[in-house]
Amino acid sequence: MLIKTPTKGMNDYLPSEAALRQYVKNVIIDEYSRAGFSLIETPAVEHIENLTGKNGGDNEKLIFKIMKRGEELARAEEKGEELCDSGLRYDLTVPLARYFAKNSAKLPQPFLAMQIGNVWRADRPQKGRFRQFTQCDIDILGDASEIAEITLISSTAGVLNRLGFSGFTVRINDRRLLRLTALGCGLPEEEFDNIFIILDKMDKIGIEGVRSELLEAGYYAPAVERYIAVYTGCDDADLFEFASASGDEGIKVAEGLSKIMKAASVAAAGGCSIKFDPTLVRGMSYYTGTIFEIKMDGYGYSVGGGGRYDEMIGLFCGVRTPACGFSLGFERIVGALSDSGFVVPSQGEKTVFLADRDLPEDVLMKMYADASALRAAGGTVAVCGRMKNTSFQIDRLKAEGFTAFRIYGRDSVKEI
Amino acid sequence: MLIKTPTKGMNDYLPSEAALRQYVKNVIIDEYSRAGFSLIETPAVEHIENLTGKNGGDNEKLIFKIMKRGEELARAEEKGEELCDSGLRYDLTVPLARYFAKNSAKLPQPFLAMQIGNVWRADRPQKGRFRQFTQCDIDILGDASEIAEITLISSTAGVLNRLGFSGFTVRINDRRLLRLTALGCGLPEEEFDNIFIILDKMDKIGIEGVRSELLEAGYYAPAVERYIAVYTGCDDADLFEFASASGDEGIKVAEGLSKIMKAASVAAAGGCSIKFDPTLVRGMSYYTGTIFEIKMDGYGYSVGGGGRYDEMIGLFCGVRTPACGFSLGFERIVGALSDSGFVVPSQGEKTVFLADRDLPEDVLMKMYADASALRAAGGTVAVCGRMKNTSFQIDRLKAEGFTAFRIYGRDSVKEI
Repeated sequence: MLIKTPTKGMNDYLPSEAALRQYVKNVIIDEYSRAGFSLIETPAVEHIENLTGKNGGDNEKLIFKIMKRGEELARAEEKGEELCDSGLRYDLTVPLARYFAKNSAKLPQPFLAMQIGNVWRADRPQKGRFRQFTQCDIDILGDASEIAEITLISSTAGVLNRLGFSGFTVRINDRRLLRLTALGCGLPEEEFDNIFIILDKMDKIGIEGVRSELLEAGYYAPAVERYIAVYTGCDDADLFEFASASGDEGIKVAEGLSKIMKAASVAAAGGCSIKFDPTLVRGMSYYTGTIFEIKMDGYGYSVGGGGRYDEMIGLFCGVRTPACGFSLGFERIVGALSDSGFVVPSQGEKTVFLADRDLPEDVLMKMYADASALRAAGGTVAVCGRMKNTSFQIDRLKAEGFTAFRIYGRDSVKEI
Repeated sequence: MLIKTPTKGMNDYLPSEAALRQYVKNVIIDEYSRAGFSLIETPAVEHIENLTGKNGGDNEKLIFKIMKRGEELARAEEKGEELCDSGLRYDLTVPLARYFAKNSAKLPQPFLAMQIGNVWRADRPQKGRFRQFTQCDIDILGDASEIAEITLISSTAGVLNRLGFSGFTVRINDRRLLRLTALGCGLPEEEFDNIFIILDKMDKIGIEGVRSELLEAGYYAPAVERYIAVYTGCDDADLFEFASASGDEGIKVAEGLSKIMKAASVAAAGGCSIKFDPTLVRGMSYYTGTIFEIKMDGYGYSVGGGGRYDEMIGLFCGVRTPACGFSLGFERIVGALSDSGFVVPSQGEKTVFLADRDLPEDVLMKMYADASALRAAGGTVAVCGRMKNTSFQIDRLKAEGFTAFRIYGRDSVKEI
C-alpha cells in the first residue's frame, strides 16, 4: 500500500471539478484567440540560473529544486557543489522571457502571447493557495504604446464577461505616478520598493497603519506626513487632479491612463468598469509603467493583474523590448464559478449502456452499433459493465451528469 | 543575459505548433468524452515512495527528483538521509492508481477515466523523444469484462479516425497466451519477464536473433527450439489455431480476444482494423491479460498501446480492482499530423488592425468598436501597434495565419 493523498498542497480534481477547469480553459483560450493572442507552450522545468535571476521576487524562495542526475550528481556530491541544476517554474513570465529571447526571430512583432500552464511554489498551503496551480498569462511584447494595455485589459474583461461575471472592476495605476508622488513628497528614491510595499498594505492596515509603518521604518517625518496627506481620502481621487500634483510629467502619465481607461471600456465585449486607484502598487518590482488589477464584488482578493515591464525581457535577450502582461487568476475564477453553483453547459444527452456479463455476440454488436448511432447524433454514450448493485451504480452515474440508462441483457434491452 | 535554450530535452512550442497541439487535445477530450470518459487531473509532483514502488519498470531510473526544502532539507543533509521527498511523474498510471485509491468512494463504478498531462523522464534525448512530453491515457477501473477493452480500443480508433488517420492497425495479444505458450514449450516461469523481453525484439532482430538470444541466456535448448517453432512464420497466425496449442485455457483466452476484435471494429466510429499478433509483448510487467498497440502505416513506432492490469490498483488501495488502460502517444500523433502538412481548421477570418502612434481618441474608439463588431460576428481581430517596417510586420502576421489587414491612421483607415 502506497501513499494515497496527493503531495502536500497539490490537488487531485474530481471529474466535475476537472470538467469545470477544462471548460474555463477553453473559454479563456477561445476568447483570447479571438483577440489575436497566440497560444505558446514552455516546459515546466526551467534552468535554475533563470529562476534565480532576481526577476521572481519572493517566489525565488519558493522554488521546487530538481536534483542533478547520474554522473553529474555524483560529481556535485563529491565536490560539494550545487546538487540541483533546474527547478519547477514559479510563474510563466520567466519562461516567456526566455522563450522570446530564443524565438523572437520567428515571431510576429509585436507578439501577442498567451500561456496557460501550471506553476509551482513551495508556499505554506492555505485556503485557496496551492503548491501547484494554473496560471493564464497574456503578454504583448514589442509594443510600447497604450494599445498593448488596452488590448490586455479589454480581452481579459471579455473573458470574465463571457464566463458570466459582471460585478468586477479593473483598478489601474502607473508605477511612474507612484514614483513621482513619492519623489514630490521628498521620500528617498532608493527606498521606493520598500515604501511601496508599505503603501500596498493600505487595504489591510488603513492610512494610519501606513503612516506608522513609514515612521517606524525611519523615513523623514515631514516627508511621511506629506505622503500621507496625498493618499488620505484618495479612494475616489480624480486622475488628473491627483496627477497634476506631480506636474507636467504626472499629467503626461495621466493622459495615457485616461486613454487606456476609456478605450478598454469600449473594446471589452460586454463592457468593463475601470477605476483609477492611486494606491495600487502590485508586488513585483519589475513593473515600469501602467499596473492593473481586477477585483470581483464580494471577493477580497484580486482575480488577476499585471502591468508594463519594459526592462525585463532585455535581461534575457540583450535587446530592450517593451512588454506588458496580464495574468488571470485561473484558480480563483474557477473557485468563484464553483461558489456560484455554475454548471458546465452540456453537449447533448448523456446516456449509459450497462452491459450484462457474457452477452451473446449479436447483442454485443447491436449494443455498440446503437452507441455509435447515438454518438453520431451528437450524444454521449458510455458503455460499461453492469454491476450487481445496479441502482447504486446508476446513482453514481447520475451524480456525474448521466441522464439516460439502458441495460443490455442476454434476452432483452431495457430502458430505465 | 540568461540561458535562452529550454532545459535539455524539453521543448518550447511556437504558435503554430502550440495551436496544433491544442487542437489535437481538444479532439481527444471531445471524442473520449462522447464515449463516456471523465477527465480527471492529478499533480505533476508525486511522492517519491509512489514513484519507486516497482510499478514503473525502467522509468524509475529516469525520475526527476525534487529536493526537500527548508528545515527538512537541512535535517536530511545533516543526518545523511535522502535529500528528495518527491519527483516528477514519469507516467499517468501511478497517479491514477493513487487517485483512485483516494477517491474511489466518490467515483462511478466502473470508472472511465481520462487524463491528458505532461510526464517527465530523464531519458537520453533523441529524435521524437523528449524529457517532458504529453500523455493521453484512458483507463477503465472496476470492470473485469471485455467491455472495457472494447470501449478503450474503439474510442481510441475513433480519435484517430476523427483526426483523419486511416492507415492504422490495432495489434492485439494476451499476456496469458504468452505465458501459456512459453509454459507449453517448457520454458521456466520465473524467467518469463526476461523471455518476453527477448521475444519483443522480433521486429528488430528477427526470429533467428530471438533464438540466439534465448540460447545465449542459457535456456534449455530443446525448449527454445519448440518456442522458436511456434513463433516462426506466425505473422498471419490464426487466433484459434495458435491458441489451441495451449489447450482449453488457450481457447478461452482466444474467445475473449475474438469478441474484443469483432466488437471493437463495430464500435469504432469510422472503423478500425484489428489484428491478432502473438509476438506482441508490451514492456511493462504489470499487464495481466489483454495487451494492444496501434501502429500507423509508414511509421515504425507505435502511436499508442495498453492493456489489462488487474493487480496494480490493489497495491495502492488494498482492494483488488480490475483495470484496463490505453495510452495514446500524443507527441507521435502530433508529429504525424505535422509531417502530413495538417492545418488546424480555422474559425472565421483572422484580421489585424495596425494602429498608428498617438491616435486621436475618436479614431481609437472607432477602431476598438470595429474590432468588437468583427469579433461578435465570429472573426478574430488582433489590435496592435504598427511598426515602422509595416510590410515586414505584415509578412510575419501572414505566417501566423492572419489574412486581412487594416491600418488605422490619424486621418484615414486603410485596408491592405
